[in-house]
Amino acid sequence: MTIGDELLYGQVVDTNSAFMGQQLGSLGLRVRQITSVSDRADEIVAALDQARQRVKVILTTGGLGPTKDDLTKHVLARYFGRELVLHEPTLRHVEEIFKRFNRPMLDVNRQQALVPAGCEVLPNAVGTAPGMWLEDGGTVFISMPGVPFEMKKLMTDQVLPRLQAKFQLAPIEHVVIMTAGLGESFLAEKIKDWEAALPANVKLAYLPSLGSVRLRLTGTADDEPNLRDRMLKLLPALREHIGSYIFAEEDISLEVAVGRLLQAKGWQLGTAESCTGGAVAQRITSVPGSSAYFRGSVVAYDNDLKESLLGVNAETLGQHGAVSEPTVREMAEGARARLGCDVALATSGIAGPGGGTPLKPVGTICIACATPAGTVSRQFSVDRGRQTNIEYTTQAVLILLWQQLAGHHEAALLKV
Amino acid sequence: MTIGDELLYGQVVDTNSAFMGQQLGSLGLRVRQITSVSDRADEIVAALDQARQRVKVILTTGGLGPTKDDLTKHVLARYFGRELVLHEPTLRHVEEIFKRFNRPMLDVNRQQALVPAGCEVLPNAVGTAPGMWLEDGGTVFISMPGVPFEMKKLMTDQVLPRLQAKFQLAPIEHVVIMTAGLGESFLAEKIKDWEAALPANVKLAYLPSLGSVRLRLTGTADDEPNLRDRMLKLLPALREHIGSYIFAEEDISLEVAVGRLLQAKGWQLGTAESCTGGAVAQRITSVPGSSAYFRGSVVAYDNDLKESLLGVNAETLGQHGAVSEPTVREMAEGARARLGCDVALATSGIAGPGGGTPLKPVGTICIACATPAGTVSRQFSVDRGRQTNIEYTTQAVLILLWQQLAGHHEAALLKV
Repeated sequence: MTIGDELLYGQVVDTNSAFMGQQLGSLGLRVRQITSVSDRADEIVAALDQARQRVKVILTTGGLGPTKDDLTKHVLARYFGRELVLHEPTLRHVEEIFKRFNRPMLDVNRQQALVPAGCEVLPNAVGTAPGMWLEDGGTVFISMPGVPFEMKKLMTDQVLPRLQAKFQLAPIEHVVIMTAGLGESFLAEKIKDWEAALPANVKLAYLPSLGSVRLRLTGTADDEPNLRDRMLKLLPALREHIGSYIFAEEDISLEVAVGRLLQAKGWQLGTAESCTGGAVAQRITSVPGSSAYFRGSVVAYDNDLKESLLGVNAETLGQHGAVSEPTVREMAEGARARLGCDVALATSGIAGPGGGTPLKPVGTICIACATPAGTVSRQFSVDRGRQTNIEYTTQAVLILLWQQLAGHHEAALLKV
Repeated sequence: MTIGDELLYGQVVDTNSAFMGQQLGSLGLRVRQITSVSDRADEIVAALDQARQRVKVILTTGGLGPTKDDLTKHVLARYFGRELVLHEPTLRHVEEIFKRFNRPMLDVNRQQALVPAGCEVLPNAVGTAPGMWLEDGGTVFISMPGVPFEMKKLMTDQVLPRLQAKFQLAPIEHVVIMTAGLGESFLAEKIKDWEAALPANVKLAYLPSLGSVRLRLTGTADDEPNLRDRMLKLLPALREHIGSYIFAEEDISLEVAVGRLLQAKGWQLGTAESCTGGAVAQRITSVPGSSAYFRGSVVAYDNDLKESLLGVNAETLGQHGAVSEPTVREMAEGARARLGCDVALATSGIAGPGGGTPLKPVGTICIACATPAGTVSRQFSVDRGRQTNIEYTTQAVLILLWQQLAGHHEAALLKV
């Protein structure tokens, strides 16, 4: 349960629930519901009342700050009929933080050390508001601050170990298979017999995103041992059907997967981008440690930079245009030479909404990948608005890179 | 209500609820709760039962895809005791989409055209699963696909106008003022007298995001005419307090605002990026028409590219390091020359988690902006994880650019 008007009105996207769900799922706990409620006391109480009917553990974040609209602690104390009492170690911790930053401590900051009587305080190493663990009528209530990095540290260091110790966790196993380049319904068609033959205690979910489908197997414990091993034994048959679309058998992104392949080969990567405007480089560099295999990018938005910085021939541009397979091939090859890398990607296209022509309408996209083995290129169409066109082009060129690195040259690159 | 196991286990962050909340809030509707539930029929039904006790309108997304785990439509039909019937216009729409992309249509795709009897179909112009509007016992149930861009289009084109008509919502006016470079509490302090003097029917909301605060005035119709004009007359006094932080008096992004200033001056922009890895270019090129003023970018992730492609002196790098004001100044000036532009931005920093040193810990960031009037640079610290560090650096260098373009050289660039 995440608390705060800012969540209800979309001023803040609730990433806390996603993080908590990931962590609880990884412990084998079943997550029953995510609820976001306002800062109003009566609505927090109503949501707590309903939640305790459903589940044994309720985690809340938010409403623990020092300002007037932060109500959670007071609501919890009243709800459970307990007084707020001063927690001395927390007070000393808060005083220490204010001393360290040389800031005057106000009375509202001192109140951070008040907690409902009888609750177990979960020390917040990176902030002033402590976490609280409170048991009542067989239900565990856990209250954490809403600041994501404080909540994450409390979850990892305090909450998860305590949950693990307290409960006999019903073993659930997840096996995630990451695919790219084939749409959800085509994948489903290719693996329908395999899916139909899954054991009764194993469920398959399709989790599509742009140009990628995550397949998630959820296995519930039965009387037999080694649930996870038995689930993993289902994979060879799956690979027979869709092997050339599987880029990972764990929950990682395409940019992480290509990063690993590049490092395994000892190859350096560069990009030459037009319509993606830096989005390819940005996705690659979003991965920690990517500087080990990424050299850089030339975003040649203007055509003359395609010539001056990437060495594309003026005749190629003149004859075929900027959005053409010959041009992106020269961009990729130019980037390989000028950036001094082993593999280079290139994109050029009409992202829209303007710039289309009858022969090359908005959404006409060309991509290329140059490797020591040669250069491959593709042309395709995508027309789902500028932002999605850029995202899809970025995904498509990463798929093309992955296919070259993994040796799946035959795999078709589907249209979006 | 967002539906799908992937939300509960954090495999997908629920951005749909945030978007719906923003839109409903802008109509003046109160959002009571956000609920995410699993794909299980009984749990969807339980959540619907509770939601209809609370509110008059329930919006759901998700579970409308063609695969087996997409249950919403079947659950709704059973819940309301209605049969699923074929909706001919939707079937023709789906057939047309498959024809346009030259793909074979499967039986599961045909089932997209089944809807609960008596519901109003909300045509999905950009996808195969239609939206549905269903009224039962005084409550409105709206079901939309979970794919964000399909949901957004349905919300904007279909759902919001229908809600406005059905509930005869009192006219509400919004005036949005976009600020950058000053934190929420500092802004609030500067404008507290102005805020206290606002008319009773005008409310102010602070909507902070990384390095920016959106101020939203919401005016509710009273007996006097010209509500919007009266609200606009409040702005001159606001400008007196925080004018040098206001980059727009409408709801546009910083990249749109700087694009307009560049076009007004007839200036071309380029970027030289290290730690942001293309994110600055990507934000600038996310704006339609940005090719009119954006020439390109050199992402020099590797130090030797800072020399070869941007002309940074080896001595500068050797003496001050890649993350230093002298280096980013040379990067910006090099980009100005090599990319042939009037203004160039540069970034260099340690985004983390690795790469920090005692003298330059993770989060040490340098940025620069070179214009015909000279070069300015800043050094600052941000330590909120790699992704946020990159986003904040991108925002900071766009603020620096805006300050140069708008002539607000005195405005401080605050630490995050």
